[in-house]
Amino acid sequence: MSDINRKFTLAARPVGYPKLSDFELVTEPIPTPDDGEVLVHTNYLSVDPYMRGRMNDSASYAPNVQIGETMVGSVVGEVVASKNSGFQVGDIATGGLGWQEYGVSDGGNLRKVDPTLAPISTSLGILGMPGLTAYFGLLEICNPQPGETVFVSAAGGAVGSLVGQIAKIKGCRAVGSAGSDDKVDYVVNELGFDAAFNYKTTEDYSAKLSEQCPDGIDVYFDNVGGAITDAVFPLINVKARVSICGQISQYNLESPEQGPRFLWHLIVKRAKIEGFLVFEFADKHDDGLRQMAEWIQAGKLKYREEVTEEFENAPTAFIGMLKGSNIGKQLVKVT
Amino acid sequence: MSDINRKFTLAARPVGYPKLSDFELVTEPIPTPDDGEVLVHTNYLSVDPYMRGRMNDSASYAPNVQIGETMVGSVVGEVVASKNSGFQVGDIATGGLGWQEYGVSDGGNLRKVDPTLAPISTSLGILGMPGLTAYFGLLEICNPQPGETVFVSAAGGAVGSLVGQIAKIKGCRAVGSAGSDDKVDYVVNELGFDAAFNYKTTEDYSAKLSEQCPDGIDVYFDNVGGAITDAVFPLINVKARVSICGQISQYNLESPEQGPRFLWHLIVKRAKIEGFLVFEFADKHDDGLRQMAEWIQAGKLKYREEVTEEFENAPTAFIGMLKGSNIGKQLVKVT
Repeated sequence: MSDINRKFTLAARPVGYPKLSDFELVTEPIPTPDDGEVLVHTNYLSVDPYMRGRMNDSASYAPNVQIGETMVGSVVGEVVASKNSGFQVGDIATGGLGWQEYGVSDGGNLRKVDPTLAPISTSLGILGMPGLTAYFGLLEICNPQPGETVFVSAAGGAVGSLVGQIAKIKGCRAVGSAGSDDKVDYVVNELGFDAAFNYKTTEDYSAKLSEQCPDGIDVYFDNVGGAITDAVFPLINVKARVSICGQISQYNLESPEQGPRFLWHLIVKRAKIEGFLVFEFADKHDDGLRQMAEWIQAGKLKYREEVTEEFENAPTAFIGMLKGSNIGKQLVKVT
Repeated sequence: MSDINRKFTLAARPVGYPKLSDFELVTEPIPTPDDGEVLVHTNYLSVDPYMRGRMNDSASYAPNVQIGETMVGSVVGEVVASKNSGFQVGDIATGGLGWQEYGVSDGGNLRKVDPTLAPISTSLGILGMPGLTAYFGLLEICNPQPGETVFVSAAGGAVGSLVGQIAKIKGCRAVGSAGSDDKVDYVVNELGFDAAFNYKTTEDYSAKLSEQCPDGIDVYFDNVGGAITDAVFPLINVKARVSICGQISQYNLESPEQGPRFLWHLIVKRAKIEGFLVFEFADKHDDGLRQMAEWIQAGKLKYREEVTEEFENAPTAFIGMLKGSNIGKQLVKVT
């Protein structure tokens, strides 16, 4: 263990897609935990779409990152020093310690992870925030019923790939859009989606959706927004439910986009759109994690992780994820 | 009683706002009721925004009107002949008999009206479909709580004028937009809205909404869509509820309109948008009518009717209503 901590701070607010120069790699001495605190050595760092919003100047549901502050984000790692009775050296813990190799916490934002149950990296993916997002966003917001059609955008991503599989477990037809033929192949042939299409090579989204969702769309789980979402609304069924999880197509625009107005579809179809954040379901997170762990063990739920090696590559991994380069959960491994 | 029935049929599908030439005044002998049927002489004919949708070629939640068919619509009138044991000559009844002076019904789409309780015209307004739309659309879809801010578009109309008053009864701040200074004066000074503005003379909707809704918007009851709705979304509060009742700004466009994308606001605010049709609450309609009748008696709920005289002026009244010429409920009186 060296005595140097490395971290990424926000160097500049991005215009459009973030650039490497929007991040600064800073070194400092490893912090020493005070009474009640623990020091965690990061093993994996998570990069997620929501981080893009935190880099903006405007306030959102959570405070934004100020210039010079450490980038927000969740890590999983090993407790290497502890003055907190809840944690022992050697424990594995996950929490929002930011983009850094070593982080100090009073334990309030840390959750212990049992490394014998599943690889610890899953605490940042299928058994972490993205998994819970898929689970509660689909089941609580949309309440999918057997025989219904569930369409999910960004189907090859950390959240979308789970949404389709949970829809299948619930007896639904699962259809998705994704940004490469490899992702389409993955979700259909490995994950068991009924159909999927590559939105980058499909010209007419409406025609493709009509073909792949011949009985219309009962549930739409939206990670993307934009043109895909525009094509969904005319195809929703009566009493359709739409959960807005993300709008990644909109996060890196240099100026806001316009789109067709669609609210009248909601009247005709008596349909509902609801935005959500996973922390709303915090009191049920343990139930969700237990259920998903069971499904993984039973072979009903599969996942893939894309691991970028070396801490200093975190910005590259993040930018790649925003552009859709990963299949499944994008992680950075810190060695 | 003459032996001639007059009715308006759809002569042409409108492009943009309907024109008088889109309707044809047809005369025919008054129909004779068969066994089980009643003949109703129309006293008042209702003109409502939803009728514009029925004039289009495309199917919606209800069948559209075919060229040459009688225009759809509700009337209230007197039973002048009956071969149905449920109705006697002299009864007052309301139902969807269309734009005509005399209509035959098997009684299935008729509801008897007690003329001693309220003027019979109210069965087409505050104690009819528009009233129930305001009541259930606000209370069931939006569940407004004391102290919350409720904003309603088309506040001077048959539905909007009730939404704001019901919001006040529920202890909310009621704010509205309307299309004339007279309407603004009416809803604020006669109906008790806390604030309102004339959208035709207001340049910056966002600034005006911020001023009139200083604590943000918890509930939005949307009758209008378009630019007003665009300005609302950035101002919604956490857990806001938006009910989509109508989108009248969009019904008469010659080509679809684009607008700013706003779904990300729903994530940040964990907010909900829901479209509805009043018939969904049919099993509770009697409760709603009873409650509103009580509020009228108690002086808590006021209404206004705009009555156009003479059956042949129905198209003019309808087109005027679509353009916002009326305050409160627009009716046509048939003499």
